[in-house]
Amino acid sequence: MTVKIGLVGTGTVGGGCLDILRDHHDDFVRHLGVDLELVRVCSRNPEQAIAHGVDDRFTQDYHDIINDPDIQIVIELIGGTTVAADVVMGALKAGKHVVTANKALMATRGKEIFELADQAGVEVAFEASVGGGIPIIDPLKHSLTANRIDKVMGIVNGTTNYMLTRMGQDHLSYADALREAQQKGFAEADPSADVDGLDAAAKIAILASIAFNSRVTMSDVYAEGIRNVSPLDLEAARDMGYSVKLLAVAHRSDEGIDVRVHPTMLPLEHQLSSVNGVYNAIYVVGDAVGETMFFGEGAGSGAAASAVMGDVLEVARHVVRGVKPIVGCTCTDSLPIVPMENLKTKYYIRFTVADRCGVLATMAGVFAKHNVSVRSVIQRGKKQTESVNLAYMTHTARESDVRDVIDEIKQLDDVLYAEPSLIRVED
Amino acid sequence: MTVKIGLVGTGTVGGGCLDILRDHHDDFVRHLGVDLELVRVCSRNPEQAIAHGVDDRFTQDYHDIINDPDIQIVIELIGGTTVAADVVMGALKAGKHVVTANKALMATRGKEIFELADQAGVEVAFEASVGGGIPIIDPLKHSLTANRIDKVMGIVNGTTNYMLTRMGQDHLSYADALREAQQKGFAEADPSADVDGLDAAAKIAILASIAFNSRVTMSDVYAEGIRNVSPLDLEAARDMGYSVKLLAVAHRSDEGIDVRVHPTMLPLEHQLSSVNGVYNAIYVVGDAVGETMFFGEGAGSGAAASAVMGDVLEVARHVVRGVKPIVGCTCTDSLPIVPMENLKTKYYIRFTVADRCGVLATMAGVFAKHNVSVRSVIQRGKKQTESVNLAYMTHTARESDVRDVIDEIKQLDDVLYAEPSLIRVED
Repeated sequence: MTVKIGLVGTGTVGGGCLDILRDHHDDFVRHLGVDLELVRVCSRNPEQAIAHGVDDRFTQDYHDIINDPDIQIVIELIGGTTVAADVVMGALKAGKHVVTANKALMATRGKEIFELADQAGVEVAFEASVGGGIPIIDPLKHSLTANRIDKVMGIVNGTTNYMLTRMGQDHLSYADALREAQQKGFAEADPSADVDGLDAAAKIAILASIAFNSRVTMSDVYAEGIRNVSPLDLEAARDMGYSVKLLAVAHRSDEGIDVRVHPTMLPLEHQLSSVNGVYNAIYVVGDAVGETMFFGEGAGSGAAASAVMGDVLEVARHVVRGVKPIVGCTCTDSLPIVPMENLKTKYYIRFTVADRCGVLATMAGVFAKHNVSVRSVIQRGKKQTESVNLAYMTHTARESDVRDVIDEIKQLDDVLYAEPSLIRVED
Repeated sequence: MTVKIGLVGTGTVGGGCLDILRDHHDDFVRHLGVDLELVRVCSRNPEQAIAHGVDDRFTQDYHDIINDPDIQIVIELIGGTTVAADVVMGALKAGKHVVTANKALMATRGKEIFELADQAGVEVAFEASVGGGIPIIDPLKHSLTANRIDKVMGIVNGTTNYMLTRMGQDHLSYADALREAQQKGFAEADPSADVDGLDAAAKIAILASIAFNSRVTMSDVYAEGIRNVSPLDLEAARDMGYSVKLLAVAHRSDEGIDVRVHPTMLPLEHQLSSVNGVYNAIYVVGDAVGETMFFGEGAGSGAAASAVMGDVLEVARHVVRGVKPIVGCTCTDSLPIVPMENLKTKYYIRFTVADRCGVLATMAGVFAKHNVSVRSVIQRGKKQTESVNLAYMTHTARESDVRDVIDEIKQLDDVLYAEPSLIRVED
């Protein structure tokens, strides 16, 4: 049976989808009983569409797609939260199924989108919004449903993982790593969404919502990027047996859920530590399944298109067999978000301090005063000046207490010589 | 809506399922709209069932389950291909959905089982048959359907991975590693199914059937275990930058598909190389998605029960929503199996030969005669006797040619001092 689809957006991912449709149309008929017919393609850029063989099906007005009564599935691949929202909401209101790769939209307006889909009796699928081609949303919504998920941790931004890999393994500076990533096309001219952790924040909001059955939006996520990760700290981490990754973490505790993106020290033996370069991986801990990890290419035309077209085929399979939506919004609980100051985890803190008697004792006093228990303190680097680097590892402590320690030590003008570094630690 | 289930088998996995049902029943109602009611439990062992809180629902006759008209889903967890076959086939004939963890049954009688399910209009789900709790069958049947899958490689037997980890990293002998695995409960008293690669063979038959849309049964799989892996070869591998894993490999080429289980040398940077101990991982390469990997616990009550109960919930969700089976047998192609002698891969071969002039030249002649191109040859170990170890790495060669090389060198009585080692190499 023919299923008619309309595609909006012919950039990298859209182009990948057009290639898959061209190469595998007959395979899908044979293996899945689904005859996909691409009825119309919308793009601001006719050249892109033509390059992928789109001819008279081309339009520059997305209304030609959402108003076409024949089209059953709309694929939205333009990104952002303005026009994309109109396309997605418009298609749903017109009773069409929607497949999207749009993390920003799903992480900010997910609730609205699911409500519209529910009213229209159609499906919304968004596997490509997190982790490129890696199946992770589908496993969370299906295979892993027997679990209470306690933690999701992901390397979900390829750009920063590439940069941290180059900085950590090959000793590039932040600036050089960024320049190289831009030259290779891994980073945008304005890298802010990647290096400030905003891209990862949208993705972990989506994953947390599904994993914990409770709505998490972009604004619930604490986001700290990699701009302040220094070579000194990368070296210290390696010496202590840790890698440094920009992790997106969602964690359930008795107090609620904490959802955050920040540079994180991970033991080198941890599976996520060996995920290097532009690869992504998502690590999921469930009460029955234990530890699992899903690894793959986080970006690139083929990987993301694999996820988009997997969703299209799944929805199309339902259309062909007359199956109504099986899984809609999964946010059936409403768990509190633990504020960042109440976070409990382990910390690495490095201070550059005056190299003289009594400083260590003074600092120890500040840690003790704020109930932050120190696991180890190591003096690092060569003694060339009158200052010295002290790298502290704490036991599990409360974020606000750690902040108080840092603030108080910052007051000690004659002790502190530079801005302290703080990296949270997972084991 | 209530969905009535019957469970056959209360061993490790069955016990895990009973625990999940007890702990999460209400969560499933709230999150999935599925009210699972365990109507009857069958076991040879009443104590096991009682230990998990099964009382008057207990029976020792599985007919009480397959003949109960109220039961909608039957969970088969007794394993093997005799009684289990009667339970599975009987349940399907009685029009019940079946969830099973039975790799041996699925790998030998999959076709029959799917035909019965199709006739009865019911589902068969078997995620737990491969990789314990790791979602892999579901992603292959859903998220990754837009791809032509070219390769599936897995560490799918935790026992042998534990043993190889201990032998490779901690220099235990095969016998000591086996004894330790048995003491820890990772290996059976008769370890043959694990160490001879038969367990892995059943699993890769299942994965290959799905990945390539073409039926592969147990008898199509070449299986070679780890009994002959020597410390000398593990050491050589490590020095050359490789790990040694018992890999289950399914690979598509122009000639067809080759499906095999054997010790394999993998570059240390490969994601599968860092999968140690009893963990499992399955590596999938698709034309669009590129490289992906699915990692987790391959055994244990919780992990396997997570997969079983995930299947049960998925089927129950369909029952509740009145959805007929969406995906049945996926073997819509019929690809030829490439016979092992036609396999083309790279090889590590170690010979213990006489340490005298001319031997290297003689050996080189034999390799050349059979068109096996040598990439490197390294002399290994200390010279204590009149013999020396020569470790060859070949370029891609044909298995039958490599066999001919070994056979011909074996004929050289005055050259060869011990049985040669052969390990296939993936990069």
